[in-house]
Amino acid sequence: MARALPQIVVVGGGFGGLFAARHLRRAPVRVTLLDRSNHHLFQPLLYQVATASLAPSDIAQPIRWVLKRQRNTRVLLAEVRSVDLTRRRVVIEDDQVPLEMGYDYLILATGSRHAYFGHDEWEPLAPGLKSLADAREIRQRFLTAFENAELEPDPVRRRPLLTFVIVGGGPTGVELAGAMSEIARHTMRRDFRTFDPREARVLLLEGGPRVLPSYPADLSEKARRQLEKLGVEVRTNSIVTGVDRQGVQVGGERIPARNVFWAAGNVASPLTRTLGVPLDKVGRVIVEPDLSIPGHPEAFAIGDMAVFTHQTGEPLPGVAPVAMQQARSAAENIQNRVAGRPTRPFHYRDKGNLATIGRAAAIAELGRFHLWGFVAWMAWLMIHIFFLIGFRNRLLVLIQWAWAYVTYQRGARLITERTLNDTAPVYQDRRQAERSISMRG
Amino acid sequence: MARALPQIVVVGGGFGGLFAARHLRRAPVRVTLLDRSNHHLFQPLLYQVATASLAPSDIAQPIRWVLKRQRNTRVLLAEVRSVDLTRRRVVIEDDQVPLEMGYDYLILATGSRHAYFGHDEWEPLAPGLKSLADAREIRQRFLTAFENAELEPDPVRRRPLLTFVIVGGGPTGVELAGAMSEIARHTMRRDFRTFDPREARVLLLEGGPRVLPSYPADLSEKARRQLEKLGVEVRTNSIVTGVDRQGVQVGGERIPARNVFWAAGNVASPLTRTLGVPLDKVGRVIVEPDLSIPGHPEAFAIGDMAVFTHQTGEPLPGVAPVAMQQARSAAENIQNRVAGRPTRPFHYRDKGNLATIGRAAAIAELGRFHLWGFVAWMAWLMIHIFFLIGFRNRLLVLIQWAWAYVTYQRGARLITERTLNDTAPVYQDRRQAERSISMRG
Repeated sequence: MARALPQIVVVGGGFGGLFAARHLRRAPVRVTLLDRSNHHLFQPLLYQVATASLAPSDIAQPIRWVLKRQRNTRVLLAEVRSVDLTRRRVVIEDDQVPLEMGYDYLILATGSRHAYFGHDEWEPLAPGLKSLADAREIRQRFLTAFENAELEPDPVRRRPLLTFVIVGGGPTGVELAGAMSEIARHTMRRDFRTFDPREARVLLLEGGPRVLPSYPADLSEKARRQLEKLGVEVRTNSIVTGVDRQGVQVGGERIPARNVFWAAGNVASPLTRTLGVPLDKVGRVIVEPDLSIPGHPEAFAIGDMAVFTHQTGEPLPGVAPVAMQQARSAAENIQNRVAGRPTRPFHYRDKGNLATIGRAAAIAELGRFHLWGFVAWMAWLMIHIFFLIGFRNRLLVLIQWAWAYVTYQRGARLITERTLNDTAPVYQDRRQAERSISMRG
Repeated sequence: MARALPQIVVVGGGFGGLFAARHLRRAPVRVTLLDRSNHHLFQPLLYQVATASLAPSDIAQPIRWVLKRQRNTRVLLAEVRSVDLTRRRVVIEDDQVPLEMGYDYLILATGSRHAYFGHDEWEPLAPGLKSLADAREIRQRFLTAFENAELEPDPVRRRPLLTFVIVGGGPTGVELAGAMSEIARHTMRRDFRTFDPREARVLLLEGGPRVLPSYPADLSEKARRQLEKLGVEVRTNSIVTGVDRQGVQVGGERIPARNVFWAAGNVASPLTRTLGVPLDKVGRVIVEPDLSIPGHPEAFAIGDMAVFTHQTGEPLPGVAPVAMQQARSAAENIQNRVAGRPTRPFHYRDKGNLATIGRAAAIAELGRFHLWGFVAWMAWLMIHIFFLIGFRNRLLVLIQWAWAYVTYQRGARLITERTLNDTAPVYQDRRQAERSISMRG
């Protein structure tokens, strides 16, 4: 009898896990990809779902569909609770009906989640943006704020309803702030009768001295100016010290605001804490030069849940290109080990960075070239359209973008479930809850 | 000082309410449209969202956006709790912060909801299809059933996971059953490794002697044959006497099934019970020939929440064309009354009926012409594309239909939030709940 093929388990269906599985498609192995959601998400465009420009299905694709022709691979919808690196098993359930799965090689790629710096109680008050559910939550709150303002005749009481605070000046915060300000000033211009949507204030609070701190200083300054042109109030050196239902506290200053969104920090997926290996201060696995987990040469960690410092001494950034290149390297190193060859160290090739700010506004760092404004935005658009390859919806997304650009309209402005947020001017939580329930009846 | 313009309140943003408001756009009145959701839904295509062919934003449009250029009209997101016909007020909230709104003329168009014939406890077990939230719930259950089957190696235990029972053989039940069978047999063919999706059974249970009972008998028979060709098991004279987590009871027979969907009956919106006027046995307002509410000539009820028997002695069917024609009549009668003219009785012009069954399968009754199969389906397609006019997404929907038709692919197969349903083979409810919560983190 022939020896059974090695079993590779890949945990996570983001850029890291999905591309790792794809790189193994011709290898003499069996692959099982586990993810707790059924779809791969094109995360760079998630903020467009959160601001009602794109529909969830425009930027998400069932993992099963992406891998359907890859016959050596199966996809299971299941959340991995822990990993036993010594016994080489992943645990899907732990007590009531434990379900374990053995592996010969493992690739962990479960990403990161938002961090509230020890203030987890802020999470329901200031949701972050990682999943489609998060994006829908933010969209509901954003759209509902304007609906509630229409019901509030008193301008003084309306002001906090129309104040939007985004905490964190990284790429996600900048994208959200730019898009929200643009929508309020242009898209919604004629929609309301009680107030002018241009009353809306969008504040971007960054704790450090400049927005987009991972970019060169001149591009941060360009980004700031572009945001201000879109109507965003940018405040740097502004560390949030409190969040409650009525607003945020920034040191001694109080900002009344019923809508707070969080884009201020990440920690690694909690799965890393079950591994029993050294982690950095945000919980990431400190991997070897070949991306394996120290002491476990058959197990690899890639993408946002891992920290790789062997190239420059500094951690590589938590961006899709790093995850995708690491996926390839980990898949190749597994094939090297299966074939009895030594593994090879990972080397990241930085092809440039782009961040979008709003309508025809972006910044780009492409080697020594720094671009901004419309040129950078066109580059951003081209690259994102290109990477949507494999997504059925590339053409549709392009049509929708063109439409939104020309008409200032937004496509997916639906409040499909009433959220139990606290932005309503006249309703109490209990009543909101009842209403939300009765709507589903 | 000039007399203030008459205040018209329209409750509901479906076909009835939205079209009523539009017909009043040039009238010398002020219009307020109240709806508890922010969007108008193209309900004839809702089953396509439930079966993952279209995205919610393809068939829904913000009411505010549709009416933005209609300057005499404002749109408020609010649920009307009751109506005081005597004092001419609608009540948005009742106790804690009561919010009342007076009117000179009223149009009620709040539609209907599913009826469980005295078994409201079946609702969480067998969800119906009225709103986008309902459609998403059905889609999650439908897609999750296949995911859970992939985790279940035992074919005997897998069988109820892959059994889909649709209760009710009207248009919604027929559409759902046809689409679900088609997806299982074609779209998902290569997606799974543990089982063949063609194992899935789709049962359509109709209490009466034939499906689509509102159509002529020959077309019911055509519909039945087309359903059977798509793989649906059609059972007529099958009255469901019990629903639980493990299946349904049909008289003496037990059908093990973990997926039950409800399309068996409607009752009028509960708002009608607050009016203090005579209702029919499903709670509909029995309106006068001019659509006004008996004893209240300034208040009108239209669409599915009203019953109109003056034309033929039989109630008009609960379909969009009736609601849209009644909207026009009510709007004209209000303008007649404002101008001091007598109102005119409503007269329904039946332009034909179509029901779709699946890929290239439908039936149509157009006067004396009875069509079926591909011809009827083309007629259905043309008419629905035509009526999506005013929906930005008409072109996109057409592209998606064409794509789905040619490739057998489905566009919107996303499980965006794990539902707390009971179809999982190995998880308990508590654990599912935890998982669902942790996913949002």
